[in-house]
Amino acid sequence: MARTTQTGTLRVACVGAGNIGRSWAIAYAMGGAEVRLFDISEAALARAWTFIDAAADDFVAAGRLERKELLRERIHAVTSLTAALDDVHHVQESVSDDPAVKRAVFAELDALAAPSVTIGSSSGELPVSKFTEGLPGAGRCLLVHPVNPPHILRAIEICPTPWTERWALDACRTMVESMGMVPVDVTREINGYVINRLQYALIGEALHLVGEGYCEPKAIDAAIKHGLGLRWAFLGPFETSHLNATQGYREYMLTDEAGARRLMSDIRADYAWDHALIERIHGYLIQAMRSEDIVQHQQRRDRQLLSLMQHLQEQPQLAAAVDGPETKPVRGER
Amino acid sequence: MARTTQTGTLRVACVGAGNIGRSWAIAYAMGGAEVRLFDISEAALARAWTFIDAAADDFVAAGRLERKELLRERIHAVTSLTAALDDVHHVQESVSDDPAVKRAVFAELDALAAPSVTIGSSSGELPVSKFTEGLPGAGRCLLVHPVNPPHILRAIEICPTPWTERWALDACRTMVESMGMVPVDVTREINGYVINRLQYALIGEALHLVGEGYCEPKAIDAAIKHGLGLRWAFLGPFETSHLNATQGYREYMLTDEAGARRLMSDIRADYAWDHALIERIHGYLIQAMRSEDIVQHQQRRDRQLLSLMQHLQEQPQLAAAVDGPETKPVRGER
Repeated sequence: MARTTQTGTLRVACVGAGNIGRSWAIAYAMGGAEVRLFDISEAALARAWTFIDAAADDFVAAGRLERKELLRERIHAVTSLTAALDDVHHVQESVSDDPAVKRAVFAELDALAAPSVTIGSSSGELPVSKFTEGLPGAGRCLLVHPVNPPHILRAIEICPTPWTERWALDACRTMVESMGMVPVDVTREINGYVINRLQYALIGEALHLVGEGYCEPKAIDAAIKHGLGLRWAFLGPFETSHLNATQGYREYMLTDEAGARRLMSDIRADYAWDHALIERIHGYLIQAMRSEDIVQHQQRRDRQLLSLMQHLQEQPQLAAAVDGPETKPVRGER
Repeated sequence: MARTTQTGTLRVACVGAGNIGRSWAIAYAMGGAEVRLFDISEAALARAWTFIDAAADDFVAAGRLERKELLRERIHAVTSLTAALDDVHHVQESVSDDPAVKRAVFAELDALAAPSVTIGSSSGELPVSKFTEGLPGAGRCLLVHPVNPPHILRAIEICPTPWTERWALDACRTMVESMGMVPVDVTREINGYVINRLQYALIGEALHLVGEGYCEPKAIDAAIKHGLGLRWAFLGPFETSHLNATQGYREYMLTDEAGARRLMSDIRADYAWDHALIERIHGYLIQAMRSEDIVQHQQRRDRQLLSLMQHLQEQPQLAAAVDGPETKPVRGER
């Protein structure tokens, strides 16, 4: 039941107007879509409008939106699910992560939406198959999961269930790419998929370190925002490792292989990786950053870090808001 | 054997001129110190100078250094350890992570350095006690570990061994703060300390996901640099969670507690955290970001993200260098 290539304006129903749903509505509207934002709660919709208007102001200030009214012109709040789903190409579900709620909502969406409509779930942890199994239209249901807030961040995780049909996966991927977002392709389901597994691996170890008294919560936040997180703002973890050794990823992982294995075993991140896996990742990395060019890429990384930190420093009102008053200057000559 | 309060110019010996050692030399020089950069290899020192000169150019271009000659005036390369250690306040060890090498080097440093000199190790994984036990001056040895590259990133992990004396810990902490760096205080030793445990928890799960075919390496890097990493550039992981729910951290962790526990158990980040720990972290977070102000802080986060992404987008030569040619524009109105 493949839908024909969508021409003209994309129409999307965002189901659920909470933190994620209302942000999705803006994301789709910024991507050029006509959006129906559905919630059973009028209060949630009212809060969503406040949020949408504030975001519109920010987008105008950032030069990304010509006039703020455009978002209100493209987003329509509705309290009728039938009206929300009328003539749309895609439904984006962002209701509670409670499996029973998800199952009930998906049953209703599947019953109401035309067969050519894809239904993406914002489920953060639970595999979509857990609440779509047995639905007549299970083949057009799949994961389309953002990083909060989706109206700004570009990474969108996409994953089929065992019964998602190819046309639905392709349609969602194309839609996401056409809006300038970056698909994070997950090939098969797993609890938490890729984004939240990476995030919760770190969160879990952070809880362990604080819970067992190795450090205060503040040290965890400082280690990331003044250290690891600045690299991760423009380099993935594999790319980061690749630039941490003059010969690249292979050298980084295998020079002190025993130490790396000891550490990962100690934190129970003890997947039994072999050298073939390291070679495969190394092979991926050298496509963009050849081993013989690592020194130049390291220099570019350093310049990007300098420039990024300078930029963050020049936003004192923002830094102060999230970090308390910052008394120390960026390091420089003294 | 507490050293008296240091007045005048700080003098530091950086032992080992590899990736980390040479970057430390710049960090201390930028902090105003007179630096002896020691290596047994003339070739390593020559490579270090190339690196230092390039960094000096970058600091001048960024307006952080008045003239590039300052780094060469403050850093002195030496191949004699005695000359390196003469009359310094602090020694920064950055040799190979091989425990036998570390032990031999620390024995030599301890024999040569005056008793009032602190000796910091850049050990990334191995506890410093493993190679300082039994040394006459073990009390002035401790962890002083950066995130690569230390001449730019501000987070410095500091941790005593069981026999580190209070004066040495205090002296190193004061030194690091006085240079505008941010101490990440670790209260007692553990393999990988805080920084690398957080990093390797994520790296280990990334290897698992790729190794078991859940995704390609590219998806891991995209999930971080187009998603999680942009938040972590200015918010720690606890702060990030705090702003992911309208009522803050407690709500984020406990609204779907079963899901969070299931996910962490599944990725084996299954530390048995209790509600008291969540309350403690919540209490730390609301000092800077009160629950009733979360909505405003979320708005500030979103503006910071917008501005950060715009900044990265405006550095095409850097983005292209590490990311391959980027054809997609930052998302905006269409």
